[in-house]
Amino acid sequence: MYNIGVDIGGTDTKIGLVDLNGNIIDKLVLKTDTISGFDKVINDIKNTVDNLINKNDLSISDIETIGFGVPSFISKNGRVTCVNLGWIDIEFVPKINNIFKGVKTYAENDATVAAVAEYRFGSMKNHNDVALMITLGTGVGGGIIINGKPFTGANNMASEIGHIVIGENYYDCNCKTNGCFETFCSATAIIKYAQKLINEGRDSIISNNINSLEDITAKMVFDAYREGDKVSKEVILRFKKYLAIGIGSLINTLDPSIIAIGGGVSKADDIILDGLCDMVRKNVLYKEHDFGEITIATLGNDAGIIGAAFLGEGRI
Amino acid sequence: MYNIGVDIGGTDTKIGLVDLNGNIIDKLVLKTDTISGFDKVINDIKNTVDNLINKNDLSISDIETIGFGVPSFISKNGRVTCVNLGWIDIEFVPKINNIFKGVKTYAENDATVAAVAEYRFGSMKNHNDVALMITLGTGVGGGIIINGKPFTGANNMASEIGHIVIGENYYDCNCKTNGCFETFCSATAIIKYAQKLINEGRDSIISNNINSLEDITAKMVFDAYREGDKVSKEVILRFKKYLAIGIGSLINTLDPSIIAIGGGVSKADDIILDGLCDMVRKNVLYKEHDFGEITIATLGNDAGIIGAAFLGEGRI
Repeated sequence: MYNIGVDIGGTDTKIGLVDLNGNIIDKLVLKTDTISGFDKVINDIKNTVDNLINKNDLSISDIETIGFGVPSFISKNGRVTCVNLGWIDIEFVPKINNIFKGVKTYAENDATVAAVAEYRFGSMKNHNDVALMITLGTGVGGGIIINGKPFTGANNMASEIGHIVIGENYYDCNCKTNGCFETFCSATAIIKYAQKLINEGRDSIISNNINSLEDITAKMVFDAYREGDKVSKEVILRFKKYLAIGIGSLINTLDPSIIAIGGGVSKADDIILDGLCDMVRKNVLYKEHDFGEITIATLGNDAGIIGAAFLGEGRI
Repeated sequence: MYNIGVDIGGTDTKIGLVDLNGNIIDKLVLKTDTISGFDKVINDIKNTVDNLINKNDLSISDIETIGFGVPSFISKNGRVTCVNLGWIDIEFVPKINNIFKGVKTYAENDATVAAVAEYRFGSMKNHNDVALMITLGTGVGGGIIINGKPFTGANNMASEIGHIVIGENYYDCNCKTNGCFETFCSATAIIKYAQKLINEGRDSIISNNINSLEDITAKMVFDAYREGDKVSKEVILRFKKYLAIGIGSLINTLDPSIIAIGGGVSKADDIILDGLCDMVRKNVLYKEHDFGEITIATLGNDAGIIGAAFLGEGRI
């Protein structure tokens, strides 16, 4: 038997055939059609799933579950609004149930999906009590696993840890609140703060490599930090200060046995982990006791497919 | 059959005989001996439990479980350090197991105990998915119930929501972090901010009723607010602003179906709840969707005994 994982993104949708050990046997990638509407997208996915099954000399009866990771909130009754995809109050779960009749289907927010993958096959394996994944990318996302199952709260609104308030910031979050975790610790936050300092007239080697401040990437800031750039040091120290505050608050709330940091920013793992535990300890209430391990996620981009493929596990 | 709940506080220890419907049949109160050490305290408790049982013509075989609420952290191996009680790294759970041999014993932090009581018999009844209790007293405490069981995290450090960082404050928390929820929303925080404004020369009717700023209580501030006092209005608006930020962050993390506010400050329930939902909505990510109900806890001081008596339920 196999599972299929569907990782719906704003640009591409990745569809993987996954064996029961979490290995991706085969995968197909299609452009996500954000113009023609949901029915077109789900039709494209159905055709690609059929291709993937045929291509591997399988039939639908060889597929145990099909899971979907969606870059948005999914309501308890399975409805999805995702402005980036052009979906307004779509009956997502009822429609996939109908199209993939006979196969068990599941759908979750993409950050929860990544946490499921890391819990089953990656950095959070065997953490059966409480496991927390933090994704540092364009925004900050979160996925919580409690007793081996994705924890999504009473209304599927849980684990939106990018929007816990952890301080006061010089700009508001897209969600209109001030001080959200993601306004301090996302790639966007790193870029914005570097732009701000350089715009204020500070010298930085980053300026040598760009035509305009818009060209700055988080990677440039981490690279310049390695070269001793003072502006980048200030940006990264601020990022780490607030990362420690955010993780401390989450430990005081959830007390995970493991915290895995993923997303694009986590590629600078050496810089992120250096001294982080000691910084987090300052923000934890029980400073003299051991808290959970802080580590880097291991599955990278494959987490989206693998996690989606295993959304049903532990629930059946 | 009956349960016994033991609510250990810094001044008094309350011991209640509780029937299986959560009614306190009888209770005895003794001074908590914070001078003579843990063995004396636990011996006093044992004698009082025996008295309570005899007094009600029962024997130990009529007691299903004995539960303890402790005003401190309890480690996974049952050890307790509580400076207020003069206990340093006490083998709490092993010792109560030994002294109450033959009866099932349980122990949890007092805020978790109160949440168990409210979940089983009070304001959070039937909220079987995720229920959150917030206690606003000298500090801010929290208790989380997930799937009908107390959620205490991987290392019993969870639900210390008084120490999530939600902003920047003009004084540091006792825990040495700046910006903790309890430095904005405890009775202590309300008193301190009123003292600060009056000390800065602001006129307030509170000043008419006190000899020194040390005499100010949170109740005085709420009472003066009702009388239109401007300083008190500023203090209460600040308290509510941050209460909404804290609750918003907790919804974004835990998404409870109910949030019950307890503790001494919650007696001003009309002032606290007035407009609170709309303020919280501004801090919730999914502003257009319904989040959990926000209400006031109903069991008051009895929650300590009742919750302790029912710590074993759902776990046995």
